[in-house]
Amino acid sequence: MAAASMDHKIAPSILSADFARLGQEVEEVIQSGADLIHFDVMDNHYVPNLTIGPAVCKSLYAHMQRTGIEAPIDVHLMVSPVDQLIEQFIDAGASYITFHPEASQHIDRSLALIRDGGCKAGLVFNPATPLSYLDYVIDKLDMVLIMSVNPGFGGQSFIPAMLDKLRDARRIIDQSGRAIRLEVDGGVKLDNVVEIARAGADTFVAGSAVFSAHRSDDPHGYDSVIRGFRERLADAG
Amino acid sequence: MAAASMDHKIAPSILSADFARLGQEVEEVIQSGADLIHFDVMDNHYVPNLTIGPAVCKSLYAHMQRTGIEAPIDVHLMVSPVDQLIEQFIDAGASYITFHPEASQHIDRSLALIRDGGCKAGLVFNPATPLSYLDYVIDKLDMVLIMSVNPGFGGQSFIPAMLDKLRDARRIIDQSGRAIRLEVDGGVKLDNVVEIARAGADTFVAGSAVFSAHRSDDPHGYDSVIRGFRERLADAG
Amino acid sequence: MAAASMDHKIAPSILSADFARLGQEVEEVIQSGADLIHFDVMDNHYVPNLTIGPAVCKSLYAHMQRTGIEAPIDVHLMVSPVDQLIEQFIDAGASYITFHPEASQHIDRSLALIRDGGCKAGLVFNPATPLSYLDYVIDKLDMVLIMSVNPGFGGQSFIPAMLDKLRDARRIIDQSGRAIRLEVDGGVKLDNVVEIARAGADTFVAGSAVFSAHRSDDPHGYDSVIRGFRERLADAG
Amino acid sequence: MAAASMDHKIAPSILSADFARLGQEVEEVIQSGADLIHFDVMDNHYVPNLTIGPAVCKSLYAHMQRTGIEAPIDVHLMVSPVDQLIEQFIDAGASYITFHPEASQHIDRSLALIRDGGCKAGLVFNPATPLSYLDYVIDKLDMVLIMSVNPGFGGQSFIPAMLDKLRDARRIIDQSGRAIRLEVDGGVKLDNVVEIARAGADTFVAGSAVFSAHRSDDPHGYDSVIRGFRERLADAG
Amino acid sequence: MAAASMDHKIAPSILSADFARLGQEVEEVIQSGADLIHFDVMDNHYVPNLTIGPAVCKSLYAHMQRTGIEAPIDVHLMVSPVDQLIEQFIDAGASYITFHPEASQHIDRSLALIRDGGCKAGLVFNPATPLSYLDYVIDKLDMVLIMSVNPGFGGQSFIPAMLDKLRDARRIIDQSGRAIRLEVDGGVKLDNVVEIARAGADTFVAGSAVFSAHRSDDPHGYDSVIRGFRERLADAG
Amino acid sequence: MAAASMDHKIAPSILSADFARLGQEVEEVIQSGADLIHFDVMDNHYVPNLTIGPAVCKSLYAHMQRTGIEAPIDVHLMVSPVDQLIEQFIDAGASYITFHPEASQHIDRSLALIRDGGCKAGLVFNPATPLSYLDYVIDKLDMVLIMSVNPGFGGQSFIPAMLDKLRDARRIIDQSGRAIRLEVDGGVKLDNVVEIARAGADTFVAGSAVFSAHRSDDPHGYDSVIRGFRERLADAG
Repeated sequence: MAAASMDHKIAPSILSADFARLGQEVEEVIQSGADLIHFDVMDNHYVPNLTIGPAVCKSLYAHMQRTGIEAPIDVHLMVSPVDQLIEQFIDAGASYITFHPEASQHIDRSLALIRDGGCKAGLVFNPATPLSYLDYVIDKLDMVLIMSVNPGFGGQSFIPAMLDKLRDARRIIDQSGRAIRLEVDGGVKLDNVVEIARAGADTFVAGSAVFSAHRSDDPHGYDSVIRGFRERLADAG
Repeated sequence: MAAASMDHKIAPSILSADFARLGQEVEEVIQSGADLIHFDVMDNHYVPNLTIGPAVCKSLYAHMQRTGIEAPIDVHLMVSPVDQLIEQFIDAGASYITFHPEASQHIDRSLALIRDGGCKAGLVFNPATPLSYLDYVIDKLDMVLIMSVNPGFGGQSFIPAMLDKLRDARRIIDQSGRAIRLEVDGGVKLDNVVEIARAGADTFVAGSAVFSAHRSDDPHGYDSVIRGFRERLADAG
Repeated sequence: MAAASMDHKIAPSILSADFARLGQEVEEVIQSGADLIHFDVMDNHYVPNLTIGPAVCKSLYAHMQRTGIEAPIDVHLMVSPVDQLIEQFIDAGASYITFHPEASQHIDRSLALIRDGGCKAGLVFNPATPLSYLDYVIDKLDMVLIMSVNPGFGGQSFIPAMLDKLRDARRIIDQSGRAIRLEVDGGVKLDNVVEIARAGADTFVAGSAVFSAHRSDDPHGYDSVIRGFRERLADAG
Repeated sequence: MAAASMDHKIAPSILSADFARLGQEVEEVIQSGADLIHFDVMDNHYVPNLTIGPAVCKSLYAHMQRTGIEAPIDVHLMVSPVDQLIEQFIDAGASYITFHPEASQHIDRSLALIRDGGCKAGLVFNPATPLSYLDYVIDKLDMVLIMSVNPGFGGQSFIPAMLDKLRDARRIIDQSGRAIRLEVDGGVKLDNVVEIARAGADTFVAGSAVFSAHRSDDPHGYDSVIRGFRERLADAG
Repeated sequence: MAAASMDHKIAPSILSADFARLGQEVEEVIQSGADLIHFDVMDNHYVPNLTIGPAVCKSLYAHMQRTGIEAPIDVHLMVSPVDQLIEQFIDAGASYITFHPEASQHIDRSLALIRDGGCKAGLVFNPATPLSYLDYVIDKLDMVLIMSVNPGFGGQSFIPAMLDKLRDARRIIDQSGRAIRLEVDGGVKLDNVVEIARAGADTFVAGSAVFSAHRSDDPHGYDSVIRGFRERLADAG
Repeated sequence: MAAASMDHKIAPSILSADFARLGQEVEEVIQSGADLIHFDVMDNHYVPNLTIGPAVCKSLYAHMQRTGIEAPIDVHLMVSPVDQLIEQFIDAGASYITFHPEASQHIDRSLALIRDGGCKAGLVFNPATPLSYLDYVIDKLDMVLIMSVNPGFGGQSFIPAMLDKLRDARRIIDQSGRAIRLEVDGGVKLDNVVEIARAGADTFVAGSAVFSAHRSDDPHGYDSVIRGFRERLADAG
């Protein structure tokens, strides 16, 4: 299976970080082996929560520049509308910008905005959203993000039907022959990551696992969490 | 004039802080003499920008508890609707929560929510918004915030007509005989703060002035900015 | 005071009735001395609840026609927008139709629609809503309804500041020299109805009091509740 | 065909009932052989009409409990958003709760809410809505409702293209191997019910037919309507 | 009265023009003595109609430049939101741009946008809208427009209560000591224009009267309509 | 291929016309060989622009009647909601009315409205919108319009992936066996029209090309543009 040959990436979600010392948190997580910083943007309209916006991204990006940490910021917009925030995140140092197709009246145009701004573009699929939104924009995508929980709500487990959805998405991506990452977000744990990777995912948003471990008593907690994921993923591939 | 006898408070706006090291920034600003932390919440719907939400407030509050810094967090909601976020900010450690009357369909109820949650409640008035929204809720207010620029847009100067509005608000507050702070936000500088204080304001949101000075080359930049405000306010009172 | 010379009307809110036998409930309540049937319409947008619409009003009106019960149906629209429902309630047998000024972009037009349909028109004021909406439409009103709780939420008590608001509304109505009823809705009880009447109200929405009594063990419970209101109001006038 | 072996259910729509004596109407209809009570909820936003909400359902459910009538209440939400009303209908005694996928931003989450509340969950498809919304939630469904007219508008006939859609839905349900009812709503009459059943429907919303017959001069009108449906459906199966 | 000393202006509404030959229509109306072209912009959201936007204004302005007709284009925005269209109309040759205070979340900012773009700014008041929106922006206005019918609906007569409102607006303008035009729109006819002028209006939107006359059999119909207004206004002043 | 046997139609977009002399512009374009007038309606909500509405259509239609020009007016609604404007355009002389499926909550009903009004009905697909909206309404369509740029934004080129989409749409139409026009709008030029026609389109919206040529120095500019399209299309077929 194509997924096996892809490199696996781990993307800790910033939502579990300590926002009072965000720069340092990110620094340590990257040093422990994380590949991307998953940056969750919620606007209290598309989802029932409000998190962080472009100004926080800008501060974080500047901090990373200053301290020499290198990692793409992977901005997941759980907002509607999207176009104005896309422009602000381009200026704020984002590498990836992904949004939900239901959240933009002009999906193709929003994707073009992201790429014209020098970022990588992606679409995010809520658990129930059909993949038919991929039909005519696959050539404009660098990432497909499959939500394996409902975004904006806490305390959910990985939805089993998303394994089939990952397999479907993997097939569509492979058929396109394009280099598109297949990311998964929600309920990814050490005990299901192998199965998820085998379904075709190559980029794994680690929710509360990483940053929480990070603040535990064990000073190397985060190392071991990320190492745990790596080891299992090595088995999967 | 009543305002003269009130104590003046300085409330640096967190928007100019470095969000990569927010805890430390706030720590230093409070140690330099700031009285409140003005926490600007924007949702990209009520205003064309998205900033920070309850999770950032919670991290900041926990950091302040941990490090023993004491200062009220003064949450200014530039969002619509407001009720769900009010509940989240009560849990996140807010001291004051203020919102715009146009942003809630049930103003009296939203004010009650804030007080029932143990916080102090306030209404915010956009530059053009008439003060008649105060007519029947003055007994539910701990703060009136007069915007002296349009919220959510950058690069604006203090709108001169707001001096009259401050005088009107001061008169209404004094007539009520209640202990209600009169805050002003937007374009407050060293060279107009005396005039603004004399118009009746007692709480001053210092926008970019404080935190920017803070990050200048001068290691004591912020001390001198806050001291500057204090000295001028002493003259005003 | 002008209010004293006006006849007092009692308007039980249908919300507390048993909707499985609505016709009979209304029949008995009218026979026990109620003057109007207060019909609360909520749309889950203007307020966070959905109640009953024109079809229920139509069934009720037909039932009343059939059984010879005479009482105006006093429709309170807690909905936005209002114009289409106004037309439907005109057809459904409403006598009064009132709406919130914030809920219509064209208040004067909506009032005209109601009167053109042969109904009596009114505006409803949320607790915090200023009375300035009355400035230029007083000649188009048959009723002013002052909410003394926040509509759509349960378990609230009469808001004391509404006594002043009733006095202000009474003064405006008296100055107009017009026959406009001043209704009050929310937390009206036997122990505060005198004070409320003295502040100028002449029409009293009795919330849960009437219909609940109605279903108590005491077969004459509702008679005594309504008689209780009458006796106290006689003292007020 | 699988549909043939399923039991057929008749679900009279409450919209045609006399709301002044709803309890008795429902009682008689159930006694005449109806299987479910189809409860149409409209909010004047998702469709241009406002009907009945949770309080009416609660009264009806209590009445049924009291009088010993047993029949599931089949709540069809023609509202947007849906989550808050879902919670209220769970408390109000609903058995089934169905909603339109376009009406919820988080379909999977809304379905989970329904089941977590102990009710059966379903999705409703407007005539033009594609069935691709079923792709990744089929394991969370107890009912699929195909609208064969446009909801919220009166005087429409069964849309012929819906026969094909029923066949497609039947195939998807059968392939899933799950016990999911396939309901149809709109323009179902004695003269087309056989054709509709053969296309795969097993649950039939009888619109104005049942309750109207009910109130005709013939005291057994409703018996004969329901019996008429039963006889024809026996032929279909 | 101050109004008497002001020059009166007649502003035919473009809505009654023949849009197939708009340039010529405007040309002839201006030559017949009209002072401004009143340009009604509706978006089918703020009012239930959609009319014309910036591209039509641009074509008209270019035509007027080309043919040497000079008259300010007086753009009345019956739209919400307003800011983006304000920018487009500035580019399209507008002289005045007015909008409804309820239609902008940031009224002061929208007024500033108009003036910063080199145009004259105004606020429009629906019949029921209180004048309190003038309290803190009078120094940013070049025009106050009082609607004497409800915008976006046809076939309405001048609302009598608007005479009082014009008197109130006139008083506020005179007290400000500023050169602010007081425009009136809706049901202005030859037989009431004197009374309206005496109430304080100085700029009169002539609705269907002018352009309709224009297309009557009488080739000089429009001359006589405008001359009729002038003669009566001379009496008023 | 089926497309080859269909007659090709050229539909100049009115957006590039001189709105000060619209009647004459249209007259000349039709005389130069254009087949339909493509009438772009934008409401500043579904797309970020506001153009022209029913009143302009009505003037244009009357002008065409008067001057004996015959050509269908092909109304493309880039608005939401659509139903009220559909009714207005039926009265204003439209021949075709097309709308976007995302813009109507009741697509089947909106299509029925158009046909019941005696017009031809169509659906428009944004570049990313899947064709699954065609699944159950193909029997109600006279036109399918594929957007090959994002509507409402300027300066875009034909999106290459739309060739595949045209082929898919052509296949669906051919399979239906119905006479449905397949229109394409956006970036259609002399140098790509053959390829586009071969992908299955039979009706070509000529954007700025025609009317701009029209106003160039060359008095026969528009003739040659339209003739250019015709010649190339002859090759394609």
